[in-house]
Amino acid sequence: MSNAWWLAPARDVDQASRDHALARQQQLTKPTGSLGRLEDVAVQLAGLQGRLKPKVDEVWIAIFAGDHGVVAEGVSAYPQEVTGQMLHNFIMGGAAISVLARQLSAQLDVVDLGTVAPLDLPGVRHLNLGPGTANFAHGPAMTEAQLHAALEGGRDSVLRAKASGAELFIGGEMGIGNTTVATALACALLDCPATSLVGPGTGLDAEGVNHKAQVIERALRLHADAVDDALDSLRALGGFEVAALVGAYLACAQEGIAALVDGFICSVAALVAVGINPSCREWLFFGHRGAEPGHRLVLDALQAEPLLDLGLRLGEGSGAALAVPLLRLTCELHNGMATFAEAAVADRPA
Amino acid sequence: MSNAWWLAPARDVDQASRDHALARQQQLTKPTGSLGRLEDVAVQLAGLQGRLKPKVDEVWIAIFAGDHGVVAEGVSAYPQEVTGQMLHNFIMGGAAISVLARQLSAQLDVVDLGTVAPLDLPGVRHLNLGPGTANFAHGPAMTEAQLHAALEGGRDSVLRAKASGAELFIGGEMGIGNTTVATALACALLDCPATSLVGPGTGLDAEGVNHKAQVIERALRLHADAVDDALDSLRALGGFEVAALVGAYLACAQEGIAALVDGFICSVAALVAVGINPSCREWLFFGHRGAEPGHRLVLDALQAEPLLDLGLRLGEGSGAALAVPLLRLTCELHNGMATFAEAAVADRPA
Repeated sequence: MSNAWWLAPARDVDQASRDHALARQQQLTKPTGSLGRLEDVAVQLAGLQGRLKPKVDEVWIAIFAGDHGVVAEGVSAYPQEVTGQMLHNFIMGGAAISVLARQLSAQLDVVDLGTVAPLDLPGVRHLNLGPGTANFAHGPAMTEAQLHAALEGGRDSVLRAKASGAELFIGGEMGIGNTTVATALACALLDCPATSLVGPGTGLDAEGVNHKAQVIERALRLHADAVDDALDSLRALGGFEVAALVGAYLACAQEGIAALVDGFICSVAALVAVGINPSCREWLFFGHRGAEPGHRLVLDALQAEPLLDLGLRLGEGSGAALAVPLLRLTCELHNGMATFAEAAVADRPA
Repeated sequence: MSNAWWLAPARDVDQASRDHALARQQQLTKPTGSLGRLEDVAVQLAGLQGRLKPKVDEVWIAIFAGDHGVVAEGVSAYPQEVTGQMLHNFIMGGAAISVLARQLSAQLDVVDLGTVAPLDLPGVRHLNLGPGTANFAHGPAMTEAQLHAALEGGRDSVLRAKASGAELFIGGEMGIGNTTVATALACALLDCPATSLVGPGTGLDAEGVNHKAQVIERALRLHADAVDDALDSLRALGGFEVAALVGAYLACAQEGIAALVDGFICSVAALVAVGINPSCREWLFFGHRGAEPGHRLVLDALQAEPLLDLGLRLGEGSGAALAVPLLRLTCELHNGMATFAEAAVADRPA
């Protein structure tokens, strides 16, 4: 494919900045290693940003929304019109991610890839890829053209982020039914039965969870030819907003912007992105471990250690946004602490 | 004892504000319970602060420092003069907690309860309780007068915090040797052998950890008469800065200021405080689960679920400080999100 931009390699990590940052960590006035995982984060960010003293002051939060044909199978606790209503809530400032973006002084980019009822909301980018995806219980969720447009929709947000000087990209999602989509995709990529990954999403009861697992199992059999390939799986089982996230993570790595991955659905998108182009993995940080049971397996497959573990299951990028101050403080500690020499503090004997 | 202020009951939680906040959480535009543990935190803070919309903008960070006679037994990786050098680093702005306090716009109150070499540092309150504690391998760490003065030193910082309008109190500690002290205290209060709790502190090797456990085991036998009582254990095995933290947590609960407990040493102080006066427990939040192996057992005993789990082992209050933005964002979400009615979003069927 001549236009397969998603296969282009990620930008290289700057090893010199990484090494320099690692040496600095060891000279700061604290016991060696005592900032735990935050030390690794600071060093990795330095390597990604190619500077001894990294920062993530400028944060871009893209919310990708879409509807899902599979909702016809009765897999969600909420009615499908909530997708559009929440898009309105995002731009009116009342949603969790709106509050967080305001507090973090982050830019919020709201992208509607395609909802059941076409919307025209000022402040939302409507890409109109279709009235939601097709029902993957009966056929592929997306056409190839829709898949490519959704990937491109994610990349376009990253290019806007880059033009605005973003130092950190957060992708969020909204789409009634999308834990079903993400679970099906994760099952395909990890070769797991649905029962090992399925969960309540926004609030199904036990019977609802069982039914959701059966819907997914049937779909995995229907699309058995697709599941060996990450991109084919995405077209067969994915959602518009999930494909946009995949495109965004790949573009972040290519354009050199660190990405902070949110919860279960975003982590599945990250798994697909790494499946398509493993070089993007180095550019991904993980915000939190969520309540959805499949999240742990997906994170393990990505060898990801999230920053937070608070039982969140809200989506919208909210868990990643909640971790932003931790990344910012990590940078401030790395950049602003005194070294043993500067502070005239005795280091322990070597 | 006529002057046992530490036994006075904690301020009552305001149940009406708590219930009101709980009802609000259920009306916000998100799936029920989807903010996980942060919902509980918002509701509890509302009850403590007696207002529907809590906030923790004004943060007070007290660092209590002291030296420990038990360092003569060779239980630390760092030389003892580091305690005083770090006090200097705190006020010069180069220590981790100095950087964090600046970033959080928190007030930093540095209290030296007694170091081996008397210091006179501008910006530090020197309480001069003694040249460190006595070596608990040979006798009680503190006299009764020293214990009372240290508890009072903690309370005095809380009274200053209250006078300055603090909405959240963080206690930190600095004292070479104080993981040994905290481990001994935790063993006494939890009735555990030293081997089940002991760890490397700032960086002991396996042999050092073994030796530390033996020193603690001998001390537990020596002070067997004290270990049935939390206050007696504190006098026998504690440190000046640990006693100050105990006094501070008790005073926070009495004065009505929520406290955010830091790592292992602070959690042991919280365990002592709860042992002395269980009514203080409701006023304590826990910032993080640290790397020191005993921390998990102490948190379990307190039924505490910390906000962060990042392998930190720095002390100084740094892990609690790192969790402050999470508390602030929790309040902003609780206070600033739209309700389903306000946003005209469909809630799921009841």
